Amino acid sequence: MRISELSERSGVPIPTIKFYIREGMLPRGEASAATRAVYGDEHVARLRLIAALTQVAGLPLARVREVLEVIDAPPTDPIEAIGRAIGALPPYVDDDGDLSRARAAIEALGLTFDPRFTAVAQLESAIRALEAAGLPSDPETLRRYGDAMMQVAAGEVAPVESMDTADAVEYAVLGTALYEPVMLALRRLAHQHRMVEGPPTPGR
Amino acid sequence: MRISELSERSGVPIPTIKFYIREGMLPRGEASAATRAVYGDEHVARLRLIAALTQVAGLPLARVREVLEVIDAPPTDPIEAIGRAIGALPPYVDDDGDLSRARAAIEALGLTFDPRFTAVAQLESAIRALEAAGLPSDPETLRRYGDAMMQVAAGEVAPVESMDTADAVEYAVLGTALYEPVMLALRRLAHQHRMVEGPPTPGR
Repeated sequence: MRISELSERSGVPIPTIKFYIREGMLPRGEASAATRAVYGDEHVARLRLIAALTQVAGLPLARVREVLEVIDAPPTDPIEAIGRAIGALPPYVDDDGDLSRARAAIEALGLTFDPRFTAVAQLESAIRALEAAGLPSDPETLRRYGDAMMQVAAGEVAPVESMDTADAVEYAVLGTALYEPVMLALRRLAHQHRMVEGPPTPGR
Repeated sequence: MRISELSERSGVPIPTIKFYIREGMLPRGEASAATRAVYGDEHVARLRLIAALTQVAGLPLARVREVLEVIDAPPTDPIEAIGRAIGALPPYVDDDGDLSRARAAIEALGLTFDPRFTAVAQLESAIRALEAAGLPSDPETLRRYGDAMMQVAAGEVAPVESMDTADAVEYAVLGTALYEPVMLALRRLAHQHRMVEGPPTPGR
């Protein structure tokens, strides 16, 4: 297809497509004449990925580039590849080297973890914010969230194991980023439901 | 306490404190002399709330002001008060009036809901993003997330019922915003754990 059709099918304006090509984020089309290039479904898919990362997940361009680099030249270890790509997702938190709260929480949950994975620093930052606001961050409270997230994760990881690494990275990044707003909206709706309906005790 | 001590205890710089006072977001201190004002613990608490909303939850100032207005003059119905304050939290999504996907999902989950509540438009937007990226948003998939969030919410709503409305609004807003990053970090850690350890099948 020509660039005009690529723009139409992806919903991305032509100047933006040209920008992504110049930045190395989108492969050039195949030259069909001196001034013409043709594009394929892989270009549509790449533009959709970039759109999801920037518009939905809120990644700055530099972070999108990190994800694309992992997808285009993934480390041989799929867990390392996925960890690196997920590390490009927000929230971006300061890591002052003290991960003690996160470590204690993760160990209490019995989870295997790599301390360099950004989610450790994100958890540390989140627990400190609870402390600063005077909200509970005791092991029992964190276990409630941890148990629910283990349950969520149990339904999510499986398909990755049967994919090649580049596809697994893309699936993991999109799945991580795009189901987050689903969960958060459903949590708020669950709160509202519970406030209106009251607790689901027997006999009510 | 004097403004210097208020700044020290809250971690908020004096010029920022003065800005919040001018903007009506923080009550003036009690005048102790023509050019002196004294501040109390309620000022520390208010500054901590503003800091949590801006720095952790990422609210723009106009949205912080909405939350504070609800807290300072709450509607008599606590559910309406909480709904309005939670409505000031991100993500901020376009609402084009079509909430059909969210409605179908919420009704399939059997939840009572107010279609004006922002979480409905947030869910609609999140489901459309899944569709655009080609990720599943079928009822069974959404039920998995919904069930986990009902479980999370079950442990969260209870304390609100014994509070006065202003306190309940503050607790609901902070609790909604500050446990979100906890959950999201734990979900990513649960993924990593599951990828390293494999599925928790018997015999493994």
